[in-house]
Order: sequence, then structure tokens, then C-alpha cells
Amino acid sequence: MILGRVVGTLVATKKDPELEGLRLLLVREVDQSLALVGKLVVAADAVGSGVGEVVLYAAGSSARQTKVTQNRPVDHVIMAIVDQFEIGGELLYDKGRDP
Amino acid sequence: MILGRVVGTLVATKKDPELEGLRLLLVREVDQSLALVGKLVVAADAVGSGVGEVVLYAAGSSARQTKVTQNRPVDHVIMAIVDQFEIGGELLYDKGRDP
Amino acid sequence: MILGRVVGTLVATKKDPELEGLRLLLVREVDQSLALVGKLVVAADAVGSGVGEVVLYAAGSSARQTKVTQNRPVDHVIMAIVDQFEIGGELLYDKGRDP
Amino acid sequence: MILGRVVGTLVATKKDPELEGLRLLLVREVDQSLALVGKLVVAADAVGSGVGEVVLYAAGSSARQTKVTQNRPVDHVIMAIVDQFEIGGELLYDKGRDP
Amino acid sequence: MILGRVVGTLVATKKDPELEGLRLLLVREVDQSLALVGKLVVAADAVGSGVGEVVLYAAGSSARQTKVTQNRPVDHVIMAIVDQFEIGGELLYDKGRDP
Repeated sequence: MILGRVVGTLVATKKDPELEGLRLLLVREVDQSLALVGKLVVAADAVGSGVGEVVLYAAGSSARQTKVTQNRPVDHVIMAIVDQFEIGGELLYDKGRDP
Repeated sequence: MILGRVVGTLVATKKDPELEGLRLLLVREVDQSLALVGKLVVAADAVGSGVGEVVLYAAGSSARQTKVTQNRPVDHVIMAIVDQFEIGGELLYDKGRDP
Repeated sequence: MILGRVVGTLVATKKDPELEGLRLLLVREVDQSLALVGKLVVAADAVGSGVGEVVLYAAGSSARQTKVTQNRPVDHVIMAIVDQFEIGGELLYDKGRDP
Repeated sequence: MILGRVVGTLVATKKDPELEGLRLLLVREVDQSLALVGKLVVAADAVGSGVGEVVLYAAGSSARQTKVTQNRPVDHVIMAIVDQFEIGGELLYDKGRDP
Repeated sequence: MILGRVVGTLVATKKDPELEGLRLLLVREVDQSLALVGKLVVAADAVGSGVGEVVLYAAGSSARQTKVTQNRPVDHVIMAIVDQFEIGGELLYDKGRDP
């Protein structure tokens, strides 16, 4: 999975029927210091995440393994909201302190 | 999914039988300011999109999950036409105002 | 799918039994002006294409959806020969005029 | 598979139910001299690996083929801990001597 | 598939049970002049290849389609040993003359 931050929302009314009811969010990959890196990705939301949150997203066929995305033409899904992560014994992110 | 703009059309008469009847469009990924980025991709159209439109496309096996692409040798599909998206609370794209 | 040009051929006699009978071609991705870009890829041929032709190829699991590649360990397949494509209303490639 | 080193841990309590019980580790790809290269990846642990260890991880649908990851929305999995590797006849890594 | 050269070997005793019995080789992609390009990849060997040989490898789910890799958490497999390839009518590689 990739570490990302939700940066925005997207509306698309004309779409494949299998996409109905999915919430689509704009996500940017972040590095360990939470700087935005990588390109803009549009992901289906499987966990009720919101703009500004640090999340995990999966790509490819794995994106169709959550309860809300099965058998849908979705190749990116947000499947977790990150509480904390640490690298080298140092706490680099704590959701409780995220401004 | 990836945000893209349809930039052209392609005709191929000699092809695998499983491709018959699919409309093939040329798509370029766009960034949040709608600048064309990334490489040229050829995608099957699942939503009746046209040249110039801002769309979402999916890659990989997920591209075979729309009604028109099931079990076909297609690895990119356009599955939605974008109406609007916003980042940081700012409306960056509105189809109604797209020239 | 990706736009490519067939640049060569490859022979491999010692291979997984599931590859028997497949024709393997060397392909390079091309951009909209037909310049060779990207890396060398070895693709199975599903449409009788030849060296020099502009083709479409698919990657990943979609490469196993043509009649000749089903259930084979193939991750790139040529599934169409391109006749024409246009971008911005301009005909950028016409097979009939390809030298 | 890709050669990587486990660099950290991650906690996510709000997640898709299919992720429950999986241990999530932060991994960075390494080159043959064990220098960290590539981006941060979040992988499910299938072999009881720990921070600092050199491991193999798989991406994509193959990440769902271990006993602990079947049918889960996981696109990266650590499926082996590396003991040794050699290139050009030279032993470049030996776990027994890894500080 | 990608053209590569086997550059080394790897041993991992602690691994997912589905990996038991697979031979793991270190592979580097090569360009048409056989220069090593791209990153180090760890691939399962499906054809009895050895260090120094020029091979074809497949990635992703296609890597699980050889006889030895079915249903295993393997995302790269060597599925052919290259005898010859030519580009632009010129024989660029002939295994018989490979030093």
C-alpha cells in the first residue's frame, strides 16, 4: 500500500453503472515527512476518510477487494486511515497531533 | 483512477476479435491545473466520452470490469466523465465552464 | 493500451511449455510523432503483425485475454495493428502512407 | 519480487474489515549495496519480519497469494526474509553479519 | 516480457510456505546492446536458467502462469532463455557467441 493524503473531492455523474454510489477522492502520495510527492490519483473511499487525512491506498486488482469495491472498475482504493507511523524508532506521524 | 483528457481517436481494423465494437480513444493524463502530463495512452471508452473531455480512466485488470470491457484484452478504460473537482476547497475544474 | 512500433524479433527455444507456439516480437513504445520512446518490450503477437508496423499492445493480466495468450505466462501482447490516429483534428498517422 | 529493508511500523485502527489482524510494515527498496532506494511502501507481513531486516516483497495481485493475505485488499506483502545473496560470485549480503 | 540478464542468486530460508522449492535469481533488465539497465529484481526460475544467461521474465499476475509458479506469491518469473534477437535486420544477440 502507499501512504497518501486526501487533497480533494471529485464529482462525475456520467459513469459506468458499476461506479454508482462510490465516493471518489483525490489523493497524493506522501513521503515519510508527509510532503506531497507523486501524481494526483483518484481513489474510491472504503473507510469514510475525509480531505486532509493521511491514509493508505492500494492499487491494481487489490483495490477491488474491499467490501465497497468488489467487481467494480476501480484501480485505486483508500482502505485505511493512518493513526501513527514510526521510522527508526522515531514517531513521524501521530493523527492526534495532525493540525 | 487517473485524471485525463481525451486528445484524439484511433482506428485499427486488424485486431483481436475480442476488441470488436470497442471505441478506442487517445488519452493524456492531466495534473490538477489540467496541463497534459505523462504519456499517450489508448483507452477503451465505456461512457460515451468525446475528444476534449476531462475523464477518469482505470488501468490494469480493473479496466475489464466495465460492462463493455469484460473479458477483453483491454488494459485502459475510460469509465467516467468528470463534472467537477476541487482541491483545498478551491474548485479547480467545472465542466460547465470548460471552453 | 500503448502505441508501439515492432522493431525486431526474438527466438527462445528453452522456455515454459505454455509459451510454445507463440510468436515473440520486440516492441518500442512510440509517442504521437512516432518517435521511439520507453524501453524495449517483448510481446506475444496476437494479430500477425510484422517488423516496422505501428501496433497497440496491452500489458499485465489483460495480455492474457486474447485467443492466443489465454492462461499463458505472457504479460505483454500485441492485439491490434493501427490504421490511423488523429490528435487535435490532425491525422498524425496513416498506415497507407507509412514508408 | 523486490529486495527491501523494513524501516518502520504503522498503526491504522480505522480500516477495511479485511485488513484486521494484518501487521503493516514500512519498507524501502534497496539496491545491491543495500542502500535505500525508491519510495516508502506499506506492506503486510507474512513471515514475522522485523524492523531492520532485509526482506523480499511482492506487489500487485501476487501479494494476495500468501496464507495471511488471501482475498484481502493488500497490494504489497513481505513473503521472505533474506539470508544471503551474491552477485558476480561475490557475497554481497549475509544476514549473520548484518549489524 | 522484459529482456534481462541473470546476475546472481539469493537464499531465503524463512518464507511463506508457498515459496518452498522455488529457485530465486537476481535479474537486471538489459537494453538492446545488453547493457544492464533498471533495478535489481528477484525472480523465480521456471526454466533452469543460470547466472550470466540472457532471459525473458514476466511480471505481475502473469508470473503465476508457469507450471512452477501457479498460486504462489511470486510477481516475477523467468520463463524463457533467449537464443537470439535481432533489431532492424541486425543480429544483436546470439547465445552461441555470448562470452
